[in-house]
Amino acid sequence: MDANDSKRTLSCTSHVCVNNPHLNALKDDILYHFSLGTGTHNLPAMFGDVKFVCVGGSPWRMKSFIEYIAAELRMEDPKSDYPNICAGTDRYAMYKVGPVLSVSHGMGIPSIAIMLHELIKLLHHASCTDVTIIRIGTSGGIGLEPGTVVVTKQSVDATFLPKFEQVILGKTVVRNTDLDQKLAQELLQCSKELNKFETVIGNTMCTLDFYEGQARLDGAFCSYTVKEKQDYLNKANDAGVCNIEMESSVFAAMCKLSGLQAAVVCVTLLDRLKGDQLSSSHEVLQSYQQRPQILVGYYIKKQLKALAKGC
Amino acid sequence: MDANDSKRTLSCTSHVCVNNPHLNALKDDILYHFSLGTGTHNLPAMFGDVKFVCVGGSPWRMKSFIEYIAAELRMEDPKSDYPNICAGTDRYAMYKVGPVLSVSHGMGIPSIAIMLHELIKLLHHASCTDVTIIRIGTSGGIGLEPGTVVVTKQSVDATFLPKFEQVILGKTVVRNTDLDQKLAQELLQCSKELNKFETVIGNTMCTLDFYEGQARLDGAFCSYTVKEKQDYLNKANDAGVCNIEMESSVFAAMCKLSGLQAAVVCVTLLDRLKGDQLSSSHEVLQSYQQRPQILVGYYIKKQLKALAKGC
Repeated sequence: MDANDSKRTLSCTSHVCVNNPHLNALKDDILYHFSLGTGTHNLPAMFGDVKFVCVGGSPWRMKSFIEYIAAELRMEDPKSDYPNICAGTDRYAMYKVGPVLSVSHGMGIPSIAIMLHELIKLLHHASCTDVTIIRIGTSGGIGLEPGTVVVTKQSVDATFLPKFEQVILGKTVVRNTDLDQKLAQELLQCSKELNKFETVIGNTMCTLDFYEGQARLDGAFCSYTVKEKQDYLNKANDAGVCNIEMESSVFAAMCKLSGLQAAVVCVTLLDRLKGDQLSSSHEVLQSYQQRPQILVGYYIKKQLKALAKGC
Repeated sequence: MDANDSKRTLSCTSHVCVNNPHLNALKDDILYHFSLGTGTHNLPAMFGDVKFVCVGGSPWRMKSFIEYIAAELRMEDPKSDYPNICAGTDRYAMYKVGPVLSVSHGMGIPSIAIMLHELIKLLHHASCTDVTIIRIGTSGGIGLEPGTVVVTKQSVDATFLPKFEQVILGKTVVRNTDLDQKLAQELLQCSKELNKFETVIGNTMCTLDFYEGQARLDGAFCSYTVKEKQDYLNKANDAGVCNIEMESSVFAAMCKLSGLQAAVVCVTLLDRLKGDQLSSSHEVLQSYQQRPQILVGYYIKKQLKALAKGC
């Protein structure tokens, strides 16, 4: 933990922690994959008011999220089409409206990890306080009706254990994947108030691969039988796994290390106990994908109303 | 191996192998992350003539590669701006000119693995033969002048061993990361003929992370000293590691399993023994990034000339 810890105790606000003594020695910090930096951009002026960060795999979805949230918060700018703040690179896309930042992270643990390293540094350099971060994504469900939204209780690995293994200098370090349980309950409550779709709290399995890693039968390679696949998914079900995706474990671990209140909200696009291929129509899949953003939009609006009332 | 093996022996052409008996049971195969499928697209008509596939992380770079190759092969279409074949999704971008396919893969092993599963199935469904696949990318160098191009001999993990660990149904399976040594030598020879920049053959370390996983001192978290970092990179140097990137191991493993002739050609953007941040100017970094495409473009032109002569 860095010097922010003492600030936090004094002011009761929560700063975004970096955990790296070497950063102080840098003259400028280049956030290469965002095409931003402390020497080229006034990060406190650009991002100091951020209170909510939403991240998701697809750049299109994260742009549509910022348009949705702007309308919900009545902060639309009719002259603007919400420019991509990271327009100097095609690695990630970033959009902002008021206190809400929307960032894409690509697919898989390495891709979201690069983004999170640079996002955490960005929020730290910008002196942001009391930031909530929510991953909104898609997933395969286990024993759930397609379209169900899962708020992650614990992110577990392919052996159903709640841990993330980070390799540092060739050695494996195990990190905790706890998420904020109060935030998860608040999101579930929001879904009840919205009353538009089913939402559950459950464990999320995070894998390194979409095909063999998730026991699919439709990859380029498959060395197991239908029964072996079914047995594995049934075991996951028994271990409380409600859905499978590819980013939640490192997201949980890194947010915890940096003191960010974090949640994972993913819609299930299919029931993996019944199949592998995403064969629903484009329109149905699109409407499912909007559910996490509707839920998180409602949550943000509610929080901002509470803040405005001084609660 | 599937039925293509017998065809290969008979005809002396090499088919792209899928290694999955369940695929035959699928009525249609939906290549979800390409927004393509056997039920919706005539894959043999669209892709049957493909002989060279080039893949790289950035969609912009893969578009610029197809423009470059079109000009090199004098196959420019003045009316076309090379439409993205995967325009129905933002997960990957794909471009084609003549026998050359250019596909983006995002960052990290999981992201390239999803793309490769669907690419291998695409080439298989399209009945492509004698396909060469080359990853053109960027990397951090070890003890090399920035701008040096590295053709990978072996892809090694963070402990410098030539293996890729694939998790299948919760169990770890170790896969071989051999690349085509003849192709690597041919690429080195092409660089000599071009005589425009330094190219070497060496081992490439493939990591799951850009910051802690590559011993950088400038991530959001860092628990090691400058000396520990330096010792680790020196050990990598001693093990023959010339550069570090994030996709080569699964690329080598999957291409080997599917019978694709494969190479990895990455430029080094900095010498990691001297620093961590990419502080060269945008123009210098851009010119470095063009080197793998210049080398691979030269190789493809040479191969096509040889084929035209009936060699």
